[in-house]
Amino acid sequence: MGESKSVGAQSVRFTEDVYVLGRAAVVGSKEGEGPLRSFFDIIDDTDRFGGENWNDAESRMMQTAAALAIKKAGLTPKQIRMLFAGDLLGQLLASSFGAGELPIPFLGVYGACSTMGESLLLASMAVDGGFADCTEAVTSSHFASAEKEFRFPLAYGNQRPLAATWTVTGSGAIVLGNKTALERSRAQREDTAAVRGGTGKQGVEVVVAGGTVGRVTDYGVKDKANMGACMAPAAAAVVEAHLKDFHRTPADYDKIITGDLGAVGVKIFADLLGQKGYRVEPVQEDCGLLIYDNELQDTHSGGSGCGCSASTLAGYLLDQLYKGDWNRILFVPTGALLSPVSANEGSSIPGIAHAIVLERKQEVW
Amino acid sequence: MGESKSVGAQSVRFTEDVYVLGRAAVVGSKEGEGPLRSFFDIIDDTDRFGGENWNDAESRMMQTAAALAIKKAGLTPKQIRMLFAGDLLGQLLASSFGAGELPIPFLGVYGACSTMGESLLLASMAVDGGFADCTEAVTSSHFASAEKEFRFPLAYGNQRPLAATWTVTGSGAIVLGNKTALERSRAQREDTAAVRGGTGKQGVEVVVAGGTVGRVTDYGVKDKANMGACMAPAAAAVVEAHLKDFHRTPADYDKIITGDLGAVGVKIFADLLGQKGYRVEPVQEDCGLLIYDNELQDTHSGGSGCGCSASTLAGYLLDQLYKGDWNRILFVPTGALLSPVSANEGSSIPGIAHAIVLERKQEVW
Repeated sequence: MGESKSVGAQSVRFTEDVYVLGRAAVVGSKEGEGPLRSFFDIIDDTDRFGGENWNDAESRMMQTAAALAIKKAGLTPKQIRMLFAGDLLGQLLASSFGAGELPIPFLGVYGACSTMGESLLLASMAVDGGFADCTEAVTSSHFASAEKEFRFPLAYGNQRPLAATWTVTGSGAIVLGNKTALERSRAQREDTAAVRGGTGKQGVEVVVAGGTVGRVTDYGVKDKANMGACMAPAAAAVVEAHLKDFHRTPADYDKIITGDLGAVGVKIFADLLGQKGYRVEPVQEDCGLLIYDNELQDTHSGGSGCGCSASTLAGYLLDQLYKGDWNRILFVPTGALLSPVSANEGSSIPGIAHAIVLERKQEVW
Repeated sequence: MGESKSVGAQSVRFTEDVYVLGRAAVVGSKEGEGPLRSFFDIIDDTDRFGGENWNDAESRMMQTAAALAIKKAGLTPKQIRMLFAGDLLGQLLASSFGAGELPIPFLGVYGACSTMGESLLLASMAVDGGFADCTEAVTSSHFASAEKEFRFPLAYGNQRPLAATWTVTGSGAIVLGNKTALERSRAQREDTAAVRGGTGKQGVEVVVAGGTVGRVTDYGVKDKANMGACMAPAAAAVVEAHLKDFHRTPADYDKIITGDLGAVGVKIFADLLGQKGYRVEPVQEDCGLLIYDNELQDTHSGGSGCGCSASTLAGYLLDQLYKGDWNRILFVPTGALLSPVSANEGSSIPGIAHAIVLERKQEVW
């Protein structure tokens, strides 16, 4: 057994290697025009993904990403023992219907835009705990289905304040596996040493090394057009807890990458951590700011949605790890726990965030 | 490590003991008038739980159950490392706001009325995998918040077809822990050997021994007033998978207890299993049929909702295990993956169910 898997107050360490076996990022037109375009596997310029309506479009996008990541892992859906998936829609509409097309035991999860953090953590725990050799984490969001759920009819063309973010049309899927699954899939995988320039019997893998489960954090912010401010305290709290639990500083990470705090939220996040004595600016990134060119694309405060951090991770972030630009990152998807009902009733918007450690690993086999 | 924690095609076995340390069932007026009244910890005849509106009422009910189960376990909220919770409302409104009042790392889960199955499985995996010494699983539903979300305004007084179920106003919470946590909490716990009639250094515990993760199963049923028919195929499929994975028959269980199939669904469930060669009738129960007196209480096909199976488990079912009336049960919460949007758009209603093994254990310490 060796080292404990339970670390400090609210963290976990994965003591067996939990490998990223496959990954897929499937996005819509706007994301395909953004700075990360070359990192996405599929860009659908119609935003429809063959669906009959916007939630059906999101289901199909999610299902495409889930199936593609499995294929890129060199596996078949039946080899995946558990699928952890979630989205923003009421009753996980997109994931439930998307998962219905896949023959994989299904566990629905919800943490608003932090859902990829939760699903990755649970999918990793299932592998590291010995409950499954292979699992998958998938989340999605769709601009049009989110507007329908939370805001105004698209045709109304409502004005958006500058603090508002733009819901990403995208889905990210990650297949995880233990050493046995890695060895089984190695010959067929896309992210193999051969593809990534390894030589002979040496290659590069990315592992999920641990993480920190966040608490619901409510600073009383009620502005649903400023979700960055709602989520920043939760992100700062989970990063602080993480650094304490692992006895690390921000400098131990090449990047600390929040989900979708956006232009407003990242400043609050850095300020809050600064007050605790942690200087995060030198390594700080935000998926919501990476995925769009906010000036050219008029997205105001950046991207958001379960698909924002998920597609950025499955595309750009993991690419940087495989290439060796980064060796260790802290991935911190952030969520605003907002429902149309709670917002209309004037409730505050609590935030949540989870932190996941991803590491590059030189492998000899 | 010993025995594998991964069993057959889609099951898990918990090889360390995952103990039930505390449990609480908090319900509303109608449930308090039903046949299980003596097994509930708190009955609020106002159905309000001090809340300002129905979703707030549900949040407070959930929070009350979560806190009470921790207290009954002889623990404090800070000793719980992970809270797995979910409810029926869009964006897990009740759980998110309820969890915001508890200082526990939060993982939101959604599987419609099967959510207690999912949260128990994940909370058990976290303990058995060594990621946490103590976790908690909580789910809730509220008749009035569910009617608001899915059906008609209460004042409209809509007619209900006979196949319809009645959403339970209730929340069930279970605190789980490993051997260390059990020993730490033993002196303060309510469900100790002393309370339950054990003598000297011998007592009775209940453990979560394993489970089977279900798949989304869609037979194309579209009638949201007949959710039993939507869920029965998923329940039959997961029970069949469970029995195959563990090489067991229904007779290996004192009871196989579905969540909320209701009067219509239980017949379909038994028929489907019968076609596969499994005779489930002699051990079959359904929380939806246990919780109300359908004739006296005019609940038609029975109770439903995340809180139905959860409060029945935390109250009646666990009591029977502690008392020794049963030694091993299979708890199979069932969910209809229905959203107001999907239902109004004419989609089918897929079902999901998970199976959890609970065993009575004679302990000597």
